[in-house]
Amino acid sequence: MNKITNIKRYHIAKVYRRDNPAMTRGRYREFYQCDFDIAGQYDPMIPDAECLKIVHEILSELDLGDFRIKVNDRRILDGMFAVCGVPDEKFCTMCSTVDKLDKMSWEDVKNEMVNEKGLAPEAADQIGEYVSLQGGMDLAEKLLQDPRLSQSKQACAGLTDMKQLFIYLQLFRLTTSLARGLDYYTGVIYEAVLTQSGPVPAPPQEQNGAAGEEAVSVGSVAGGGRYDGLVGMFDPKGQKVPCVGVSIGIERVFSIVEQKAEASAERVRTTETQVMVASAQKDLLEERLKLAAELWDSGIKAEVMYKKNPKLLSQLQHCEDSGIPLVAILGEQELKDGVVKLRNVASREEVDVSRVELVDEIKSRTLQ
Amino acid sequence: MNKITNIKRYHIAKVYRRDNPAMTRGRYREFYQCDFDIAGQYDPMIPDAECLKIVHEILSELDLGDFRIKVNDRRILDGMFAVCGVPDEKFCTMCSTVDKLDKMSWEDVKNEMVNEKGLAPEAADQIGEYVSLQGGMDLAEKLLQDPRLSQSKQACAGLTDMKQLFIYLQLFRLTTSLARGLDYYTGVIYEAVLTQSGPVPAPPQEQNGAAGEEAVSVGSVAGGGRYDGLVGMFDPKGQKVPCVGVSIGIERVFSIVEQKAEASAERVRTTETQVMVASAQKDLLEERLKLAAELWDSGIKAEVMYKKNPKLLSQLQHCEDSGIPLVAILGEQELKDGVVKLRNVASREEVDVSRVELVDEIKSRTLQ
Repeated sequence: MNKITNIKRYHIAKVYRRDNPAMTRGRYREFYQCDFDIAGQYDPMIPDAECLKIVHEILSELDLGDFRIKVNDRRILDGMFAVCGVPDEKFCTMCSTVDKLDKMSWEDVKNEMVNEKGLAPEAADQIGEYVSLQGGMDLAEKLLQDPRLSQSKQACAGLTDMKQLFIYLQLFRLTTSLARGLDYYTGVIYEAVLTQSGPVPAPPQEQNGAAGEEAVSVGSVAGGGRYDGLVGMFDPKGQKVPCVGVSIGIERVFSIVEQKAEASAERVRTTETQVMVASAQKDLLEERLKLAAELWDSGIKAEVMYKKNPKLLSQLQHCEDSGIPLVAILGEQELKDGVVKLRNVASREEVDVSRVELVDEIKSRTLQ
Repeated sequence: MNKITNIKRYHIAKVYRRDNPAMTRGRYREFYQCDFDIAGQYDPMIPDAECLKIVHEILSELDLGDFRIKVNDRRILDGMFAVCGVPDEKFCTMCSTVDKLDKMSWEDVKNEMVNEKGLAPEAADQIGEYVSLQGGMDLAEKLLQDPRLSQSKQACAGLTDMKQLFIYLQLFRLTTSLARGLDYYTGVIYEAVLTQSGPVPAPPQEQNGAAGEEAVSVGSVAGGGRYDGLVGMFDPKGQKVPCVGVSIGIERVFSIVEQKAEASAERVRTTETQVMVASAQKDLLEERLKLAAELWDSGIKAEVMYKKNPKLLSQLQHCEDSGIPLVAILGEQELKDGVVKLRNVASREEVDVSRVELVDEIKSRTLQ
């Protein structure tokens, strides 16, 4: 892979997935995804913890409501299946059945395991006990003492890493819980789900692909994990590059944010423009362009309408529609007086501001 | 096109081009491009002027050295060919011959026109006169008075728009010159070329595709123009959406910036990280993570090494290599005193800063 052995990067762009007929309702092969990944050979759980910190930061910042981050480790799942007596070749299919607990009752899941997939009922019952558990550091410690699970070297390795992860996450002031996870990754696995009540947006159209085709649950907005085997598959010499990453379901997040805004009758701002340079009379295009250039040169995000003689009303309407907060209005009187009429779009208040003070005034009014 | 009739957008991403065997030396089908475009029905030359303003801003900001922006209009070229007696069906091929004036002498260009492409020698001589002209507003006005060229309605329309464009560009305090342009666009055409002397970087690998496959000249770093016909080609009803845009040859710009940096032995900063949280002794990973989280939460771009016990020297070396300007060093003494040793990587100066003042100190030292 171009000899790159470590990299930390993010990416917001279109990605593509193999289409899965069972999942086609509203899910497209091409969709936007926001990914963050850390590749490289590092000490255990440090980059993994940073990925979770970033998911937490993003979801908190976006103000989507309450959410919960669930973590697990592939090795704990595998070890759990092993000690419950699931044959190796059935791990994968059991995993996908267990994952249906989000949408099905335990009885139905057990029925699928036993009657469709041929698992012994006692094995299914043992699995049922484990997958009902939830908790943090306390649960990891309890499971490490579990007489059955502690027999599995794999499970112990996974649980030890989980404990380490919880320690780092406490330093980052994050709370996560150990929970049933997704079959995909080689080590740590995580998923963030919204837990708020209230109107839940439309079906998850664009669940992040990296979290696995089967990973859709109503409130899922992010997922990820460790995929130490993937890069090596594409390296001619099979050289491994350990990776851990996270995907934010950005289209999903957008639809939630938009629905929230609609519900609150709040206008979604579709522009970063701070000020519209408008004219109150005809034949002031050149004056508008000159002022816009002055503002641009001072780092202000300004816009003008690309019309020679736009109506003042349509200039103001454009600001209302797109959420531009300020309008700098030029008229003959203003030009004569060396001022600009600065209008607050929301309150409709207007004050004359001298040209020399305009940049500072706009900056102070549009500080985030 | 999804019923979008106006949009203003930029895009820095991979684009693809049909490969042209004559141009394959170092040019790839997949390359990065930075595009800015304005689509929509607007009054003449206003969005066009904004595109040029943006090219000028970008190239000035990047500090690539002197550059020149050349503009022209497809209709002036077509009109010029018409009044010089070039048959309609030969416009395209003449245009590409004329474009070779960057690399060939006028004699060779004339030879190709006359002997290879069958143009009358007098027609070629007339073209030669026009294409040797350069200038701004003055030239546009002179050409509008030109007894021959003013016979062409097309040329007059193009020249009138050019004059209008020059007026807007003067308001933006830009200087451009009317010059021979590229065969591609429907109206205004422009190209930015570096004019600095000194070491010219490697062959233009990644000239922007939008400026036309033939548009490569040694110093060309940006190009664009009006393409009012393109969107309609893809609309089922043939509805036209006028567009004007510009492409920055971003890979080209990168290689210039890198070469300049190498020449000046200046290190190219490959990260935005403001501070590295480092430890001077063993077993301080958790303290490093805690401090990093504090800094992140205050909006500081901080990094830690993903190792339990990295050597101080390797932490400092990483900062030197990637251009991180500051290191916040934690040791047992610092933790006891409630301070951090803040090290300036370049000067190697170290001062103790109290934890409560650390964020402000880092912010004040890393202000751009």
